Amino acid sequence: MADISISEKLVAFSLSPARDIPDTAMEIVSLSLFDWAAVGLAGIDEPVSRKLRQYAKDAGGKSEASLFGDHQKTSLRMAALVNGTTSHALDYDDTHFAYIGHPSTVIFPTLLALSERGDIPMSTFLEAAAIGFETACRIGIWLGRGHYQIGYHQTGTAGAIGATLAAARLIGLNTSETRHALGLISSRASGLKSQFGTMGKPMNAGLAAANAVETVMLAKNGVTSNPNALTGQNGFAETHHGEQDTNTALTDLGSIYILENVSHKYHACCHGLHAALETLRTVALKHSLHAAQIKHVNIRTHPRWMTVCNIVKPSTALETKFSYGHTAALLLAGYDTGKLETYTDALAQDKNIQAIRDRVKVTADAAIDEMASAVSITLTDGTIYQGTYDLAQPASREDIGSRLSLKATALLGADKAADLWQNTRPENGSIINLGRLMRGQ
Amino acid sequence: MADISISEKLVAFSLSPARDIPDTAMEIVSLSLFDWAAVGLAGIDEPVSRKLRQYAKDAGGKSEASLFGDHQKTSLRMAALVNGTTSHALDYDDTHFAYIGHPSTVIFPTLLALSERGDIPMSTFLEAAAIGFETACRIGIWLGRGHYQIGYHQTGTAGAIGATLAAARLIGLNTSETRHALGLISSRASGLKSQFGTMGKPMNAGLAAANAVETVMLAKNGVTSNPNALTGQNGFAETHHGEQDTNTALTDLGSIYILENVSHKYHACCHGLHAALETLRTVALKHSLHAAQIKHVNIRTHPRWMTVCNIVKPSTALETKFSYGHTAALLLAGYDTGKLETYTDALAQDKNIQAIRDRVKVTADAAIDEMASAVSITLTDGTIYQGTYDLAQPASREDIGSRLSLKATALLGADKAADLWQNTRPENGSIINLGRLMRGQ
Repeated sequence: MADISISEKLVAFSLSPARDIPDTAMEIVSLSLFDWAAVGLAGIDEPVSRKLRQYAKDAGGKSEASLFGDHQKTSLRMAALVNGTTSHALDYDDTHFAYIGHPSTVIFPTLLALSERGDIPMSTFLEAAAIGFETACRIGIWLGRGHYQIGYHQTGTAGAIGATLAAARLIGLNTSETRHALGLISSRASGLKSQFGTMGKPMNAGLAAANAVETVMLAKNGVTSNPNALTGQNGFAETHHGEQDTNTALTDLGSIYILENVSHKYHACCHGLHAALETLRTVALKHSLHAAQIKHVNIRTHPRWMTVCNIVKPSTALETKFSYGHTAALLLAGYDTGKLETYTDALAQDKNIQAIRDRVKVTADAAIDEMASAVSITLTDGTIYQGTYDLAQPASREDIGSRLSLKATALLGADKAADLWQNTRPENGSIINLGRLMRGQ
Repeated sequence: MADISISEKLVAFSLSPARDIPDTAMEIVSLSLFDWAAVGLAGIDEPVSRKLRQYAKDAGGKSEASLFGDHQKTSLRMAALVNGTTSHALDYDDTHFAYIGHPSTVIFPTLLALSERGDIPMSTFLEAAAIGFETACRIGIWLGRGHYQIGYHQTGTAGAIGATLAAARLIGLNTSETRHALGLISSRASGLKSQFGTMGKPMNAGLAAANAVETVMLAKNGVTSNPNALTGQNGFAETHHGEQDTNTALTDLGSIYILENVSHKYHACCHGLHAALETLRTVALKHSLHAAQIKHVNIRTHPRWMTVCNIVKPSTALETKFSYGHTAALLLAGYDTGKLETYTDALAQDKNIQAIRDRVKVTADAAIDEMASAVSITLTDGTIYQGTYDLAQPASREDIGSRLSLKATALLGADKAADLWQNTRPENGSIINLGRLMRGQ
């Protein structure tokens, strides 16, 4: 028997007017918004993004919501579809590992589509986004590993449900309307992992946002549904292999914001490389190391990554994004691994980079966590420096902010990065300005 | 291990230019189009239909496709969404029991949305519709009872996939584009049975049509996906409890058109009730029975209907359409169960009807075919009358045509019914005129 109370509890949490979201959570959501906008703007020339903008143009619709990379606005659902897809096209957006999904690329396109008409204050927007992040993560946990393992793309499923709750709060649906919106989204939240590696993957994010926008607008128009369709008989969890551990999913709901564990990407390559790159960066910075001093590097990593991103001699730009040796060499030679342009065919063939790369050894170590890495650097003078890094360890808001600023600058240049930063802050950001920046104006 | 060849086979079947669909199949599809248009026009004042039209108006979009009940045209996907929902709002459209779904309400809205811009000939339209009916039915069989039993609304899932194949043929996608469209629809085909009895049910049909339209337009724009996402690892069948009996599903594909077994409704309530109503009607007529004579009624039905249409004490007009007891009581009390006006909140609360209803007992009997029913009526004097009826018994095309004409006349009046008949015929029907009639012009 499914527990139906999770719907009641999430709706109550989502709509509570007295909700006191801690500043630390609001700050993380603001940083994610900044990062999301930067990644979205960086993705506008991806083929899937161009094709989606063309589709939007062909369909027409009222000019009410901004699109990444298009001077013209479009209709609400279409904006959510295009922006969700565009901001996930590079797979450079944020991730939440407990949720097993990407929160920003669904929550923000949903809320932005619904915010520009009304010129919603940034603080209101971020508050709704925090609700979306938090509920998407908790629904992700509630659906569980089984849901993900069988083949569902949690970004599309749990993401659409969280986005619906966030949107319901933003546009002011009451409890009954929100329950109906939750019923409607339960009948359409979707997305398969089998799309990974194709344009279908970012489209799952866009579709989740589009579905969330459409279901709240329908609920606002008075469309009703089965308010227990998430959990009841023949409902979403039952049909979609949901594990439904409600107690675990709702532990400390409202007092602890698990959204704060969201993880941002600082390197434009496979996520399996990030812990090693962070370790190398920390050690190299601390000791002011230069590639010429280094005799050899030993990277220890969890065994699962050995078949994912350990291409020893990459020969193409794409292959370099899946190579410990190559990315380590890039970093030690002073290249910015956060830049898209750092991954080129030419650098794959570069003799200096190859020489450093061939001094990097990668070892599988089952004792190391999946999100962690241990690095040992031996210098030509015999000195050995060691370090470890775990992506799961919390970082200060200031550190995250400065790293994301460097990333945005690498992607868009300093001026646009500063503009985006300014307009995504909780205290003085502006949705209207953010929309203008998305449109490239 | 999933069999991926069903995708190849269905795509080849759907796109074959030499396809020679038998006249008997084309005639049935034409009759279904006539019936679908009549039911759609009869549904324009349903609350869900009005709300959807308002939603379409609010979103705007190019004026390219007709809506039931609106002088203004709208954009392609929106027309599919609104017309799919409107034509299923009364639950008076056709059904295919092997498919376990409603073909017309998904296939026709999809194809109409894509036909008016190009003024597609009726014969081309009906040919594509026949492909949609046939593939939806076969995918329904392939997904199987398990898929339906766990809680999926096959009209929304298999329906969206069949509609995508039909639409791919209609707009001239090539094999590769059609495979990508099939991949895209696999990542979003959805719909839950838990919506039954709410506005969410007709919305599942509208969403299926909208999804089919959007995925073929995206594939036409060059959006790609995993072409094996229907059947491969982490694919639709694996995630959605699909039974995947490919041999049974594809038996005699192209030589036998199982679409010819489509069943039309002559009672304005859930199709699961019809065999019982036909039996009751026959027995009651034969013995000139009146409600006052009846001590109790026992209806035996296939177990699967027990969770579909056995609401024991319906309290709203909508709920009465899913109640053996209530509809049996209506029929025995002399109401015409073919009329929309027979299903009202007032009659749900009527003490006389409730008194008869409470004398009706419904029993699950696995020995009874799904489309059949057995009824036993015990009179106050102890006399027992029994009867059976099987909807699977074939009827002639002429009989179906005349029953459907009577139904359309009852719903719309003789003039509109004749106009619709004229414009849905394979030999001289017109999509442009059909669109005009849908818009009420």
